[in-house]
Amino acid sequence: MAGIPVHRTPIRPEWIDYNGHLRDAFYTLIASEACDALMDRLGMDEAYRRRTACTLYTLELHVHYLSEVKGTDEVGVNVRILGADAKRLHADFEIVRARDAGVAATVEAMLLHVRQSGAAAGTAPFPPEVAAAIAALERQTAGLPASSAGSRQMALRRPPSPA
Amino acid sequence: MAGIPVHRTPIRPEWIDYNGHLRDAFYTLIASEACDALMDRLGMDEAYRRRTACTLYTLELHVHYLSEVKGTDEVGVNVRILGADAKRLHADFEIVRARDAGVAATVEAMLLHVRQSGAAAGTAPFPPEVAAAIAALERQTAGLPASSAGSRQMALRRPPSPA
Repeated sequence: MAGIPVHRTPIRPEWIDYNGHLRDAFYTLIASEACDALMDRLGMDEAYRRRTACTLYTLELHVHYLSEVKGTDEVGVNVRILGADAKRLHADFEIVRARDAGVAATVEAMLLHVRQSGAAAGTAPFPPEVAAAIAALERQTAGLPASSAGSRQMALRRPPSPA
Repeated sequence: MAGIPVHRTPIRPEWIDYNGHLRDAFYTLIASEACDALMDRLGMDEAYRRRTACTLYTLELHVHYLSEVKGTDEVGVNVRILGADAKRLHADFEIVRARDAGVAATVEAMLLHVRQSGAAAGTAPFPPEVAAAIAALERQTAGLPASSAGSRQMALRRPPSPA
């Protein structure tokens, strides 16, 4: 298991597509819900968001689909913190089937701390207590093994062109 | 506008998150719906899927979030075919706000043609008529300008370590 558990959910019937499996987009919804749980854990919960007008915006997502999830499945999500700076958080979420511990997908996210309103609206540094919580979780998880190759440039390998 | 229009949708109220904007996961649902429309256009529609037991599986997604979408927005999706081989299709979806033509996100996908059942279950080459439709759309769109940097390895740039 790569990362520490932050979220668990059954698969809702409306998430199943015409192929009989979890639709690709709903893997990212599960990761998005796991990100909410991660924010709670790091001290950026609803009360924090209300008090500070600060939240996280997603800048990029990179999803590797590794195996199928069915309507009868329940999945857990583990997280690793891959990096952070004053305003950004780089996290990897791993979606795991409960029935067989199979890794269904990895969702790598780059997140930006933003103040949504007020005179200082715009990107905003994490406050010290959040930065400390991020650093602690990074120490705990950054070295854990990954379940996929990680993000990369996406391209088909083509045969070399004739000279 | 990068690509040709394949899909258009209003923003559903349940897609809006606590930040007051389209939740990150629902950008990928819009791209997923656009992918269904692309499959129809390329001859892999519901009748094809029923007749052949073939469909497309998503292998990877890479999303760049470029600007916000609100509950009152309607968005269009344009597609470019970036490449294809015998069984795989590399497509880039661009989500554009109708009100101001602002590009809200790009969603780059690697898709695999799969036969879901029967003796020949597994990855499957595109039939000639689908391969021809893909090639025609690739000729039409591959050279169009991109709206984002495209997929890449995701990483925070850090200051160099002290020697």
